[in-house]
Amino acid sequence: MIDGVCILGPVEGLDNARILGPCVLGHPAADGDERPLVLDPGVVIRAFAVLYQGARIGRGTTIGHGALVREGNVVGERCSIGSGVHLECHNVIGDRTRIHSGSFLASATVGRDVFCGPSVVFTDDPHPPCPCYRECLGGPVVENGASIGAGVTLLAGVVIGAGSLVGAGSVVTRAVEPGMVVVGNPARVVGRRDGLECFAGIFERAYAWDSGSDGSGATPPSSSVTVRRIE
Amino acid sequence: MIDGVCILGPVEGLDNARILGPCVLGHPAADGDERPLVLDPGVVIRAFAVLYQGARIGRGTTIGHGALVREGNVVGERCSIGSGVHLECHNVIGDRTRIHSGSFLASATVGRDVFCGPSVVFTDDPHPPCPCYRECLGGPVVENGASIGAGVTLLAGVVIGAGSLVGAGSVVTRAVEPGMVVVGNPARVVGRRDGLECFAGIFERAYAWDSGSDGSGATPPSSSVTVRRIE
Amino acid sequence: MIDGVCILGPVEGLDNARILGPCVLGHPAADGDERPLVLDPGVVIRAFAVLYQGARIGRGTTIGHGALVREGNVVGERCSIGSGVHLECHNVIGDRTRIHSGSFLASATVGRDVFCGPSVVFTDDPHPPCPCYRECLGGPVVENGASIGAGVTLLAGVVIGAGSLVGAGSVVTRAVEPGMVVVGNPARVVGRRDGLECFAGIFERAYAWDSGSDGSGATPPSSSVTVRRIE
Repeated sequence: MIDGVCILGPVEGLDNARILGPCVLGHPAADGDERPLVLDPGVVIRAFAVLYQGARIGRGTTIGHGALVREGNVVGERCSIGSGVHLECHNVIGDRTRIHSGSFLASATVGRDVFCGPSVVFTDDPHPPCPCYRECLGGPVVENGASIGAGVTLLAGVVIGAGSLVGAGSVVTRAVEPGMVVVGNPARVVGRRDGLECFAGIFERAYAWDSGSDGSGATPPSSSVTVRRIE
Repeated sequence: MIDGVCILGPVEGLDNARILGPCVLGHPAADGDERPLVLDPGVVIRAFAVLYQGARIGRGTTIGHGALVREGNVVGERCSIGSGVHLECHNVIGDRTRIHSGSFLASATVGRDVFCGPSVVFTDDPHPPCPCYRECLGGPVVENGASIGAGVTLLAGVVIGAGSLVGAGSVVTRAVEPGMVVVGNPARVVGRRDGLECFAGIFERAYAWDSGSDGSGATPPSSSVTVRRIE
Repeated sequence: MIDGVCILGPVEGLDNARILGPCVLGHPAADGDERPLVLDPGVVIRAFAVLYQGARIGRGTTIGHGALVREGNVVGERCSIGSGVHLECHNVIGDRTRIHSGSFLASATVGRDVFCGPSVVFTDDPHPPCPCYRECLGGPVVENGASIGAGVTLLAGVVIGAGSLVGAGSVVTRAVEPGMVVVGNPARVVGRRDGLECFAGIFERAYAWDSGSDGSGATPPSSSVTVRRIE
């Protein structure tokens, strides 16, 4: 065990996880959740991360440097939770989803094969700091295969449809239909994701590498993707 | 004392504080401030936080994981300084104010019972990096009981009036009058806070739980708030 | 050596650097880069920072608390890489450039004497998560002496001209010409930087302290700047 790992409460699966630096595991939950922190086999935890009791991290998922995972989070398999990401309480995150550096999620429901860019902020209270926000709109819902650009803000309760794209820097105040592209503050529809040009001329169109352009069968990007250059 | 706590300079009140993980206390000030770091009774400091000499933290306030508190900060009682918050030099923060995760404050004056959402950025130089910015507009001023949504940017010197609401993702370029609601980039007035509907139907209107809707007598949200369901 | 410094791989120049708290040095590169982490003389590294193999940090540069510097970054001399900054792979950053707290850079080319405010996000993929994004637009390019305000989002491949100013909270979707000022989402030109008023009345105009207003000969701000008060 690396020096500097603080085990503050019950942790399951520590022996099959890779701990790559000083970190805090099993931090007591603020809400009294007494369940252990559960680490499925192959979980990787980087330096200065903090993981609470009552969180569950799926097989092969990586938790980045300085990330915070509070109680009640359920993170799927082969996800990437980036450096400095803050998972506030009670997010559910699907398999193979990537949450990039510095993003903040609260009460969110995120599907599988979702890409969430850096510095994205999820909110869960339309009128902060309402004492009853948990009984209100809830956190955002992001459906399978959607992509959320960098620096986006999602308002409480919005639904981001499967296979849609939210442009970088947007502020999303209402639902985004599946497969659509929205941009701006407030975000407005500017087209369909399957109508976007591939600037590099590698694919017939942007997202052609995604076998289900509605995200329902999204292929996780990898080096094995077949590249068809446009002549 | 937990392993990994680095005491780099003078700290007052360490015995009455709760230190919950490795952290750095009494970091030397860049401006030569030789005053100690002062921790009032009941302060809680979480793992990987860094607190400088010349800062003062009020009774019962919590400093989150990985937060940074530099010299010259004066933080009131029962505040929450969230995970990953950066308090640059010389902010003043009133009692019971909550600064949520990842926010950045510089030269700010923040009242009591303020809610500042995650990833809010306060600025203090209209023409960066001016060598004389300290003699210019100064940092933002946030009056008592105001709420600032997630992902907001506040320009140097703006005044956010008591009991106002700045919508998530807004960029505030001019003063916000007390009790108003502003949204957008640049932020524009869209109504009064006391005209907002309670979406959940729990209160007569949003913020009805706040006994002084101008924020002057703001009730800190808690489980003891009386909920009057609308029939 | 301070307790809690983890040396995970080869590091050159450790003896001439100042390490000011627990941190991780020489973290293995994800791309198999086997070059050492190179620290030029006078580098300062603050607590809870993580620096990877295959990064090079120039003479006299400071790496802030909790900052992350991945493989392939080349950082110039006398730079400031702020607290919580994430330098993803393969950025090049010129001398005397300041990247403020919480910013995120990916595949960026940043000149010298650049000011990048807090919570700025650089992106490098117009259609995330494209498996071929490295062959597409690349990261943003910021020319010498440009200033980027707080909370800005830069889209992939945009060029920010020398001596220009991007207003706080902007989303930059196209090139900014040298010396211009842009603001908004999307960012639009609102004037020239050399036409901005000095609100404090200290200089004849804003940025008059900058000896080359196109940034080509930008004077690094310091206390030695000559202040000519306007009568």
